[in-house]
Amino acid sequence: MKAEIIAVGTELLMGHVVNTNAAEIAEMLGEIGIGTYYHIVVGDNPQRLADVVSSAIARADVVVISGGLGPTEDDLTRETVAEVLRRPLHRDEAWVRHLEELFARRGWGPTTTYALPKNNYRQAMVPEGAELLPNDRGTAPGIWIEHDAQGRDVLLALVPGPPREMRGLMAGAVIPRLRHATSDRGATGMLASRVLRVIGLGESRVAELLSDLLAEQTNPTIAPLAQTGEMVLRITAHGTDRATVDRLLATTAEEIYAVLGDAIYGEDNETLESVIGAMLKQRGLTIATAESCTGGLVGHRITNVPGSSAYFLGGVVSYSNGAKSDLIDVDPRLIAEHGAVSEAVAQAMAVGAMERFGTDYAVAITGIAGPDGGTPEKPVGLTYIAVAGPDAPNQPICTRYTFGGEREIIKWRASHAALDMVRRSLLRYNHTDSEVPRE
Amino acid sequence: MKAEIIAVGTELLMGHVVNTNAAEIAEMLGEIGIGTYYHIVVGDNPQRLADVVSSAIARADVVVISGGLGPTEDDLTRETVAEVLRRPLHRDEAWVRHLEELFARRGWGPTTTYALPKNNYRQAMVPEGAELLPNDRGTAPGIWIEHDAQGRDVLLALVPGPPREMRGLMAGAVIPRLRHATSDRGATGMLASRVLRVIGLGESRVAELLSDLLAEQTNPTIAPLAQTGEMVLRITAHGTDRATVDRLLATTAEEIYAVLGDAIYGEDNETLESVIGAMLKQRGLTIATAESCTGGLVGHRITNVPGSSAYFLGGVVSYSNGAKSDLIDVDPRLIAEHGAVSEAVAQAMAVGAMERFGTDYAVAITGIAGPDGGTPEKPVGLTYIAVAGPDAPNQPICTRYTFGGEREIIKWRASHAALDMVRRSLLRYNHTDSEVPRE
Repeated sequence: MKAEIIAVGTELLMGHVVNTNAAEIAEMLGEIGIGTYYHIVVGDNPQRLADVVSSAIARADVVVISGGLGPTEDDLTRETVAEVLRRPLHRDEAWVRHLEELFARRGWGPTTTYALPKNNYRQAMVPEGAELLPNDRGTAPGIWIEHDAQGRDVLLALVPGPPREMRGLMAGAVIPRLRHATSDRGATGMLASRVLRVIGLGESRVAELLSDLLAEQTNPTIAPLAQTGEMVLRITAHGTDRATVDRLLATTAEEIYAVLGDAIYGEDNETLESVIGAMLKQRGLTIATAESCTGGLVGHRITNVPGSSAYFLGGVVSYSNGAKSDLIDVDPRLIAEHGAVSEAVAQAMAVGAMERFGTDYAVAITGIAGPDGGTPEKPVGLTYIAVAGPDAPNQPICTRYTFGGEREIIKWRASHAALDMVRRSLLRYNHTDSEVPRE
Repeated sequence: MKAEIIAVGTELLMGHVVNTNAAEIAEMLGEIGIGTYYHIVVGDNPQRLADVVSSAIARADVVVISGGLGPTEDDLTRETVAEVLRRPLHRDEAWVRHLEELFARRGWGPTTTYALPKNNYRQAMVPEGAELLPNDRGTAPGIWIEHDAQGRDVLLALVPGPPREMRGLMAGAVIPRLRHATSDRGATGMLASRVLRVIGLGESRVAELLSDLLAEQTNPTIAPLAQTGEMVLRITAHGTDRATVDRLLATTAEEIYAVLGDAIYGEDNETLESVIGAMLKQRGLTIATAESCTGGLVGHRITNVPGSSAYFLGGVVSYSNGAKSDLIDVDPRLIAEHGAVSEAVAQAMAVGAMERFGTDYAVAITGIAGPDGGTPEKPVGLTYIAVAGPDAPNQPICTRYTFGGEREIIKWRASHAALDMVRRSLLRYNHTDSEVPRE
C-alpha cells in the first residue's frame, strides 16, 4: 500500500511553522508496513487543495490529510474533500452535543463564553458515508473515509493540524483502522527499525569499521546519519511478521555491537543522560557538576531525566573566576598560572564539586564557547573536561577537546562529551573487580 | 512569481528527518516577495523525482530543489533534473580542481584519504547552460538554471540538503539571483513580516485585547500563534516597495504596543535571555542564578547569549536540600518548616545566590517538575520563583506558578517565567527615578 501525506495550512507553506506532522505520520505508517511516496504542503486555498487531493487519490492507496479542520473560515479541508469525493456533508448531532457540553462547562480552549460559537458547528459536519473520529484533545474531530476511486479502494484520514491532536487521532483511531485494512488485503508485510546511537567515532571511521556490513546490506538496511556530537545507525528490516523482523534486526544489531562495542551508548530514544542516570541509580552512586562554558546545560540535561534527584545532588555554574574559587575551592593561583581554561583548573573544579556536594562523581567543564574570547593558543572551542570519581578522587581524568561550530553548538558538543566521559568512567569502574560500589 | 519547493530524500519521506529546509526556503522567498504554492517531499527514486520536477516546471516560475546532490549512488537530483530538462551534463573542471585540492589538504569532511574519491567527481557535473554555484561548506555545489519551458521562463535552483550548506547557497547565490530576476520582470511587489513576542498573557486574552485590530486586519495581517510559555503576533504587510511595507508594519506594531505594552518582550529573533542580557550589559549590572527544578536551564539560556560573561557571574544548581544550605546558605529550618518548594525557600535561595556571587540581581527557582514528587497540596508543576535585586535585596519578589505539561515543558515554562520576572524587575528598576543604577 502506497501512502501520500498532505499538510494544509498557509503558515506551513510560508515557512512560519515547520511541517513536523508529515514526518511523524510517515513514521507511524512505516511502523505498520505502509510506505509513503509523497509529502505535500498546500495553503488554505480551495482550488489548489482540491487539485492536490485529487492527484493523491489517483495515485495512492492511503491519503492522510492534516490541518484545515479548525473553526475559522480559512479552514477548508472538510468542505474541499467532500466536494472532491462528491459526498454531501451532514451534521453529526452527537458531536454537536459534545461541543455544546464542553463550552457550557467552560474551561475549554481559548474561549470566555458559555455558548458554542457559531463557527464551531462546522466542525460537526461529516461527508456522507464517512466516519467521525472523536478527538479528546480539541474541538475538531477526525474523519475516516473508505472511498471507491473508479474501482480502486482508497482510504482517507483527515486529522487536525495541532501535533498533539494529530498524534492522539493517528494513534487511537487511524493507525488501528489502517492496520485492519492492510491485513484484510493480505498485505501482511511489515517494516521496523532499531536505532543504535554511537559516540566518539566519526562517520567515516564508523563507515570504515562497518564496511563489510554496509556493503552487503539488503534486508536489514543500515543507514548511518551524522548528528551533532554523535551519529546514529538506523537498522531497518522488513518481513512477513513481527517475529521475523525482530530476528533480522537483532542479528544485524549484534554484528554491529561486535564491531563498535562501547561506542554504542544506547538505542532508539535513549539519551546519554538517561543511560548514565540508569547506571548511577542502579549502583546507588551520586554525581555533581561544575560548569563553566556550558553554563548549566549539563545539569539541565541530567535533570531532564525523571527521578534524577536520586543521584544528581547539584552543580555550580562557575562562570566567573571568583565563583570557581569561592564556591568550589579552585586555588586562584591555578587560574593565574594556567588560565581558567586549562587541564589544572578543570581537574580542580571536578575535585571541588565532588567535595562540596559530597558525591561519588563530579564532572567539570571549562572552555571557550565564543564567538569572542579566543586566542591563537586558546582558540574558540577549546574545552577541558574532567571527571573525578571513586577510582581517582584526587587525580581526575581530563580530556582536551577542540569543538567546532557556533556558540550553542560548542556548548552542546561539550555537554555531550562530558556526559560521555561520565558514562565511560562508570563503565570502567564497573569492570574493576577490586573496587566494589558502595551499595 | 509562484514558487515550488521540492525536498529530495528517502530519510525525509520516511519521517526520520523533518523537512526544515522547505520552511526556511519559503521564508527566504517570502522576504523577497515570492510566494510559495507547494512544498513537495519525494524519495531517492528517479521516476517519481522526474514526475515531481516536471509538474513543478509546468506550474511554477521558480523551483527550488534541495537534497540529492551528495556523492553517493542514491543522490540523483543532478542527473534527473538534467534529463527532465534535456540538457546533457558536462564536467566543471574548476570544481574538480577545487575538490582535489580540498582532499589533498585533508581535513575536509569525513574522509581519511588524500585522493578525491571517484564518487565525488559526479559532484562537478553541471547541466548544459547551467551555472555552478560554489559551496564553501561542502563538496556539492549548487546549480542555477534559467529554463525556457515552452515559451515560459522558469528559474531552477538546486541546493544541497544539509541545512548549513543550503542556507549558505540560498543566501549567498540563489536569493540575489532571484531578487535580480524579480526586478527584471517588474514584479516589484514585496512582502515582509515583523514578529512581536508576548509573554504573560494567554492567547484568548490577547485576542480580546486586540479584537478591534484583529477584526479589521487586511494589510497588514496579524496572525497570533501560541508557543510554549509565550505567544507571537506575526504582522505581515505587502506593498510595492520596502519603505511602504515598513511603514505599514510600523503603524500596526505601534497600535499593538499601545495595547499590550510591557507584555511584548521583544521582536523577531530576540529571546528573553538576549533582551535581559542587553539590559544588564547596558547598565553594568550583574546577575546570578539559584536553580532547583530547572536544573541549570536558566543558566544555560543566559549563557547562550554571546558576551554573557560580562553580567552573568554564575549559579548554583541546588538540586538537593544539602546543596541549598551548604552552597547558598538557605537555613535548613526554613526547608524543614516550609518544604523545599515554598516561597520562603525561593526567597532565601535568591538572597543566598546574590550574596555568594556578589551580584546586583539573583533569580531563584524551586518547584516540582514531575512526573513524581507531587502531593495534593504541592502538585507537579508548582513552582516558586524569586528575584532579588537592588530595589529589594532582603525581601525578593516571589511569584507562585502552577505549570502544566510534562517534565521538560514544566522546566521550560519555569525558565521562561524566571527570565521574564528578571526582565520586569529590570524594567521597574529603570523607571524608579529615586534609585540610580551604579554605573
